[in-house]
Amino acid sequence: MSQLVTLDQIRQARSELPPQIRVTPLLHSQGLSESCGAEVRLKCENLQLTGAYKVRAAFTILNRLTPEQKRRGAALSSSGNFASAFACMGSLLGVPTAVVMMEKTSPFKVEKTQRLGARVVFCEDRFEARFEALEQLRSEGITVLHHGDEPNVIIGHGTLGLELLEQWPELDTVLVPVSIGGLIAGVATAIKNAHPQARVIGVQPTGSCALHDSLRAGEVRRVKVNTICDALTAEFPSQLNFDHARAYVDDIVLVSDDEVKRAVVWLAEHEKLVVEPGGAVTTAALLQQRVTEPGNTVALLSGGNVAIEQLAEWARETR
Amino acid sequence: MSQLVTLDQIRQARSELPPQIRVTPLLHSQGLSESCGAEVRLKCENLQLTGAYKVRAAFTILNRLTPEQKRRGAALSSSGNFASAFACMGSLLGVPTAVVMMEKTSPFKVEKTQRLGARVVFCEDRFEARFEALEQLRSEGITVLHHGDEPNVIIGHGTLGLELLEQWPELDTVLVPVSIGGLIAGVATAIKNAHPQARVIGVQPTGSCALHDSLRAGEVRRVKVNTICDALTAEFPSQLNFDHARAYVDDIVLVSDDEVKRAVVWLAEHEKLVVEPGGAVTTAALLQQRVTEPGNTVALLSGGNVAIEQLAEWARETR
Repeated sequence: MSQLVTLDQIRQARSELPPQIRVTPLLHSQGLSESCGAEVRLKCENLQLTGAYKVRAAFTILNRLTPEQKRRGAALSSSGNFASAFACMGSLLGVPTAVVMMEKTSPFKVEKTQRLGARVVFCEDRFEARFEALEQLRSEGITVLHHGDEPNVIIGHGTLGLELLEQWPELDTVLVPVSIGGLIAGVATAIKNAHPQARVIGVQPTGSCALHDSLRAGEVRRVKVNTICDALTAEFPSQLNFDHARAYVDDIVLVSDDEVKRAVVWLAEHEKLVVEPGGAVTTAALLQQRVTEPGNTVALLSGGNVAIEQLAEWARETR
Repeated sequence: MSQLVTLDQIRQARSELPPQIRVTPLLHSQGLSESCGAEVRLKCENLQLTGAYKVRAAFTILNRLTPEQKRRGAALSSSGNFASAFACMGSLLGVPTAVVMMEKTSPFKVEKTQRLGARVVFCEDRFEARFEALEQLRSEGITVLHHGDEPNVIIGHGTLGLELLEQWPELDTVLVPVSIGGLIAGVATAIKNAHPQARVIGVQPTGSCALHDSLRAGEVRRVKVNTICDALTAEFPSQLNFDHARAYVDDIVLVSDDEVKRAVVWLAEHEKLVVEPGGAVTTAALLQQRVTEPGNTVALLSGGNVAIEQLAEWARETR
């Protein structure tokens, strides 16, 4: 078993976060509170800089490079929210960044990553081609980061758990969207060490439930992925994230894609918040009463990067 | 000239607000700050209970009824955000409420008002029919409120100005959406009395600019209304609101409906916030750089009650 991240490491990372990374609002939800018979609040990381929680980890890993590494620059492979966060935090810290993306990546995501300040390096549309492109960058002296298996990612995401405890010391249950498992690893490590009586529950789509299956099997398992939640598509949790989840996560519950669509529409209509499907799984779980005796509950909304036209299509489908 | 509301009256009303009325987030906007070369923050009253700022005034007027009036109930005419706020605050205070709506009112708004706890009384689709229906309710012993010319509305809305000064004592400019003028009357009275060096600037659609024209004429003027901003359709400011605006408002700037559509889409895409067109006029003014030397600027987002399908249509139109 790998060495687990500590509460002190997360506290230290939190003290290093710059003011540009927001303390995001924790908003009472009247609708969810009525639906659950408990006090429910929404943690709005969709309102975070770049529209997702990832800046916490991106800052932490980039800020901890050596001066020489910072000068030469850093690279990783991502086509989604991590790419934006990495580009944005690189610009903030003055670290040149490169992001490897497959040629099939949507021009929208490419343009956003470039606008935030990263160089985009394209590779063929093969899983392994990304690693080849990263190796090429490494040979140019650039530091290559594998954000799936990096303690500083867990440490950076863990700052969100500490922030929650500060905003609501009486919390009983925290619901966290899960993909490769870095976010819940960090949040659960912070919460369970600082406030052991609270529960940390992950939420995955039924079509992408690798951590759910792995925890039940007692070892990392690989699954086939088929979900509308484009931010939650990891085929397996990283070993490091899995080890943290096994130590600290109470349970994983599942929601269907249709339940997620309804949650995305519900959040826009009732809470006036734009939330991407992967960020709305926690709301879906509460609307479906998938969590028993939730008590003082936080639903983490992890991101808001979804097209308006997509929202409208789901609104039509689910009415 | 009517007697103006005082800062002390607003402070008193603020101390009476219940915890259900939220201190809404004031969020840094990176995009607007870059566009204006100044620090711009969004005051998110779209995230307020019922999705609009109106609960502040609705609570204040209902809470100040006599015990006998509270028992018999209160009524007003509204087809929009005030109806929801009035119904919701009536339920909170245990005051029976009735809302007069024309028969043409959208079933969506009728249903929302009923769900929040008010009785809906329909009248014919004539301007005067609303007053006839209200007179009928008055004859039943119900207190009839005319929220356009009611000091407690200005006092209630003024609590928003005090909240802003508490959240950001260094603010220089506050942009406020304007219809009949009650919101800006309250906010400007609070801000200019507590912090006279700040500017308060109203924003109206070019197709509904009654307060703009009235201030230039030095008296209340009536205009023809034609705008997509369904919350900003007053044909003239009330005399009481006009008198406050003349005393305290620095300027009114105008934005076109197309500029408003782009602002609504921009807020959803870049800030992950659902904002109705009337609430997005302030963002439109900043995106169009209609305010010179704004300094530390607040754009008030007054409400979020807009259909997702409408958002998507404007996204298609303006791309």
